[in-house]
Amino acid sequence: MTIFPISFIFFLTLSSSYASVQDFCVADYTAPQGPAGYSCKTPANVKVDDFVYTALGVAGNTSNINNLGVTTAFAAQFPGLNGLGLSLVRADFAVGGVSPIHVHRGASELILVVEGTLIGGFIDSNNKVYLKTLKKGDIMIFPQGLLHFAKNKGDTPALVFAAFNSENPGVQLLENALFQSDFPTELIAQTTLLDTAQIKKLKGLLGGTN
Amino acid sequence: MTIFPISFIFFLTLSSSYASVQDFCVADYTAPQGPAGYSCKTPANVKVDDFVYTALGVAGNTSNINNLGVTTAFAAQFPGLNGLGLSLVRADFAVGGVSPIHVHRGASELILVVEGTLIGGFIDSNNKVYLKTLKKGDIMIFPQGLLHFAKNKGDTPALVFAAFNSENPGVQLLENALFQSDFPTELIAQTTLLDTAQIKKLKGLLGGTN
Amino acid sequence: MTIFPISFIFFLTLSSSYASVQDFCVADYTAPQGPAGYSCKTPANVKVDDFVYTALGVAGNTSNINNLGVTTAFAAQFPGLNGLGLSLVRADFAVGGVSPIHVHRGASELILVVEGTLIGGFIDSNNKVYLKTLKKGDIMIFPQGLLHFAKNKGDTPALVFAAFNSENPGVQLLENALFQSDFPTELIAQTTLLDTAQIKKLKGLLGGTN
Amino acid sequence: MTIFPISFIFFLTLSSSYASVQDFCVADYTAPQGPAGYSCKTPANVKVDDFVYTALGVAGNTSNINNLGVTTAFAAQFPGLNGLGLSLVRADFAVGGVSPIHVHRGASELILVVEGTLIGGFIDSNNKVYLKTLKKGDIMIFPQGLLHFAKNKGDTPALVFAAFNSENPGVQLLENALFQSDFPTELIAQTTLLDTAQIKKLKGLLGGTN
Amino acid sequence: MTIFPISFIFFLTLSSSYASVQDFCVADYTAPQGPAGYSCKTPANVKVDDFVYTALGVAGNTSNINNLGVTTAFAAQFPGLNGLGLSLVRADFAVGGVSPIHVHRGASELILVVEGTLIGGFIDSNNKVYLKTLKKGDIMIFPQGLLHFAKNKGDTPALVFAAFNSENPGVQLLENALFQSDFPTELIAQTTLLDTAQIKKLKGLLGGTN
Amino acid sequence: MTIFPISFIFFLTLSSSYASVQDFCVADYTAPQGPAGYSCKTPANVKVDDFVYTALGVAGNTSNINNLGVTTAFAAQFPGLNGLGLSLVRADFAVGGVSPIHVHRGASELILVVEGTLIGGFIDSNNKVYLKTLKKGDIMIFPQGLLHFAKNKGDTPALVFAAFNSENPGVQLLENALFQSDFPTELIAQTTLLDTAQIKKLKGLLGGTN
Repeated sequence: MTIFPISFIFFLTLSSSYASVQDFCVADYTAPQGPAGYSCKTPANVKVDDFVYTALGVAGNTSNINNLGVTTAFAAQFPGLNGLGLSLVRADFAVGGVSPIHVHRGASELILVVEGTLIGGFIDSNNKVYLKTLKKGDIMIFPQGLLHFAKNKGDTPALVFAAFNSENPGVQLLENALFQSDFPTELIAQTTLLDTAQIKKLKGLLGGTN
Repeated sequence: MTIFPISFIFFLTLSSSYASVQDFCVADYTAPQGPAGYSCKTPANVKVDDFVYTALGVAGNTSNINNLGVTTAFAAQFPGLNGLGLSLVRADFAVGGVSPIHVHRGASELILVVEGTLIGGFIDSNNKVYLKTLKKGDIMIFPQGLLHFAKNKGDTPALVFAAFNSENPGVQLLENALFQSDFPTELIAQTTLLDTAQIKKLKGLLGGTN
Repeated sequence: MTIFPISFIFFLTLSSSYASVQDFCVADYTAPQGPAGYSCKTPANVKVDDFVYTALGVAGNTSNINNLGVTTAFAAQFPGLNGLGLSLVRADFAVGGVSPIHVHRGASELILVVEGTLIGGFIDSNNKVYLKTLKKGDIMIFPQGLLHFAKNKGDTPALVFAAFNSENPGVQLLENALFQSDFPTELIAQTTLLDTAQIKKLKGLLGGTN
Repeated sequence: MTIFPISFIFFLTLSSSYASVQDFCVADYTAPQGPAGYSCKTPANVKVDDFVYTALGVAGNTSNINNLGVTTAFAAQFPGLNGLGLSLVRADFAVGGVSPIHVHRGASELILVVEGTLIGGFIDSNNKVYLKTLKKGDIMIFPQGLLHFAKNKGDTPALVFAAFNSENPGVQLLENALFQSDFPTELIAQTTLLDTAQIKKLKGLLGGTN
Repeated sequence: MTIFPISFIFFLTLSSSYASVQDFCVADYTAPQGPAGYSCKTPANVKVDDFVYTALGVAGNTSNINNLGVTTAFAAQFPGLNGLGLSLVRADFAVGGVSPIHVHRGASELILVVEGTLIGGFIDSNNKVYLKTLKKGDIMIFPQGLLHFAKNKGDTPALVFAAFNSENPGVQLLENALFQSDFPTELIAQTTLLDTAQIKKLKGLLGGTN
Repeated sequence: MTIFPISFIFFLTLSSSYASVQDFCVADYTAPQGPAGYSCKTPANVKVDDFVYTALGVAGNTSNINNLGVTTAFAAQFPGLNGLGLSLVRADFAVGGVSPIHVHRGASELILVVEGTLIGGFIDSNNKVYLKTLKKGDIMIFPQGLLHFAKNKGDTPALVFAAFNSENPGVQLLENALFQSDFPTELIAQTTLLDTAQIKKLKGLLGGTN
């Protein structure tokens, strides 16, 4: 019995609200997603808090194998970013902390050192390695789609913020893709030249199967 | 007599170098610019320092009418950003410092508060104003092409970094566009509704003419 | 009892229609919007009238503070434009009419003078002002994201059509953003350098609060 | 009575699944389409088979007026392509087979000859014709939006695969647009300079009306 | 002897001017062109007249086979459009005037009827024809890459302006591509199904060879 | 003495040729490159052979560690592709041949099996592995920026063509980036978790240093 009124309101709301001009498209996580991102929240429901995100104010937990805490502000967490082509990540490096070799499928990355000293690096498709020691206030650009990494070089924690020109840049870590998955060991060996023993050792460490 | 050898080397260099695959396009400030950005440096001359920028490590000078120091890392200063669609700005707010109302022609902006407390705000095209007090670690997104501003709200200096999804986002400040230009006073009055006396006063302050 | 059949038809229609190849995406104002625009009407329901818009044939009402009538043909009014990256505006200038300083967040603008004589102008991010008297048949381009305006310079009405390379370019007018909103007077003063009295006067005129 | 639980599950599923990071957007043909393509399947339901398509392994039927068999792998048939900007077509040319003059609205095309010998050609907007005999292993690029065609030049069947930089490139064939439609004969004559008799003859052949 | 100073000035000018921030990229027709358009004029040389174009104020010559006068304002004629993604065309239709079937490779088109009455039409890739009588003030959108045309329907001249979301949309007319080129008659016949006699007749009329 | 005439011809040529409308931008490998690709050849010098590439007709040499022959048709080899967003690669797999794990920075990839049987696979950013046995005629899409690979699964050679939606997609192979570069062994160990002995072994095999 309640269905008719609900449907009625539903379509009424849609037809009136979606026709308005929009300056932004705050993510509605309950509606379908398309290639360009999430559906937009009805403008009338948008609030200033959709454009503000506070979780990067807290240091990430570095008690892990890489001594690295990562907190992401991607569109999946921060709805105001949807469709706007920008996102941010906070990376806390304990002493000895490492951001392992990885790649972002759809964005360049610009890192800013807020505390500490790091080595940043990337490799280009001619296998040329670009390495640099970065101090507080230094910034370094990692061009889109190239393998890169960073490592705390000092004896104090380091804090980095990384900006991406995508609200959903993805992160593919080499060690996790290979050794924390069900990628068959034999196939890894054949497609990477790594020894089977090495693969099995790291699968044991990271939880991979097969 | 020296001309032939020089030309010969010039074209030889070009034909061999420009044909290589490129992962990036480090700006060559001595060659023509196009709609997509600067020409690329010859890959053989690219160095890791093209991808690193250190000028944001130093606080900007806040001894000005807005008590604001701004240091930009756009492609015009940081050649490695060329073509990669990302840039960064450091903004130092003295106590009472203000980033006046402005707009970026080609980018959204994501600000990160590193020190202090600010009010951030923007206005949408329905004249709705979004205001928020931002503390250390907070981030706020200003959607592309909308008027926005920030203001130090605390009694200590504030430090903000702002990321843009363009390597050349532009900055158009209202007060400078109107009052630091040769925009005729009468025309400003007609197109803004401001009083002539107000316009003349601010032109006097900021150095505008006409 | 009627629900099952309706749902059945609903999903059947969807699954058959959405899989067809599409040359266009006529806006369906009753379905969710995404960052790339409105959802598409089912192709079977698309008609030639979706691609034609007649409201620009009528002069806009110029009885207002700017003596300006504006009629928009954006995707929110003209569904055939959705996803196609083009739109049009008709601007009627009474004698003395002014298109006040404004900016479009996501598009360049190309104006065409169909009747009368105007001054067109824009300001670049180095605060250089570009002014030109435009006669019937003249066209002027306002590059994306820069403040611009136009003013009837003659003693007869003027008629302008403006094309945008976005179906949803947005319009942010300075005087409305500042003085027709609830932007706090003190904050306007601090972020624009305008005098409080000036702000209050214009808020009174335009209906702003706070 | 069954409605509430179903709705409940529906929204619960949506809110949990759509918020995840996505590397791809496999087409969900049952949900609305937008200007950027189909809505995405819930990531949990994505399978490897969404990324594999086997229908191009079979020769197309060439028993038609052009002696040409065409099998498309566009996003409308191959859901994994959605949003990824690539598609493929298989074209089987019987002896004497012809791919008639046509245009793709939104993509360049790169053809690869796998078997046989063909003439490939396109016309630029200065009416310059580019013709080339292509042998097994040759590739030819047809720049975006230009009229092009291919013709089996040998006395054996030919096999071509064509890649497009769009998952939905569209195909508009001249002879079908003009003579297999309800485009009024008089209007065709006026807008093409073709003789009425010629138009009527081809409408008779291809099934056009009016 | 004069070479050194000239080179010196040349490079000095380049290095100082190209490094500035740019809001636009006015075409420099004397420097190389790239995929994104013309090289940019040195900003210091940019003038307001680069952004204004007056040639559309004059009616085009309609003394031709289509009774149609076309005047283009593309980036190749109007340097300020370079890189900005917009252009405009003026089309004067004498009585009986026709804009023959054509396609633009890289843009949608939005036409505005300023005088007279026309039939506008386009064909989609399912061979569906969309026809509409357009009166003064009406606008019609032709989606990107689809064949379209217009025809003066009244007994007075008609005037149309057409906007494109590209500064270089290209124009490929069917009758010119086929019959004003050196496209071999036999190949036209095979790829269009037109009769040889028809092709030869139109080649005779339009000046085609082969 | 010869300088003046040469310069004169140079600038004359430029000013006349670059102003023409262009449907394509065939790469001029002797002029500067920008973020959007190579400069365009003067249109008058463009020939049909710029749009045709024949090197993919020959099997690549498979006498190497991966038993794989790769022949690329990127814009750096095939000038007609410049600016058109498409390219092609031929991959010959000997028995046991492997296309090792790699990533393309700027494109999705669509592979077509022309001969033989392979396993194709990719890993998403949640470390989920997608594996599929592909037979003659099968196609598989590797979404942009994700690690992927292929392996000849049969006891005969296999032949694959791979299309990319970029004319310059780049190729970054894991084993070469890590073990054929001067990436310091200790840093590899720290950023990949691989054992030093494993790294040194593979550097020995592939020629890496440091």
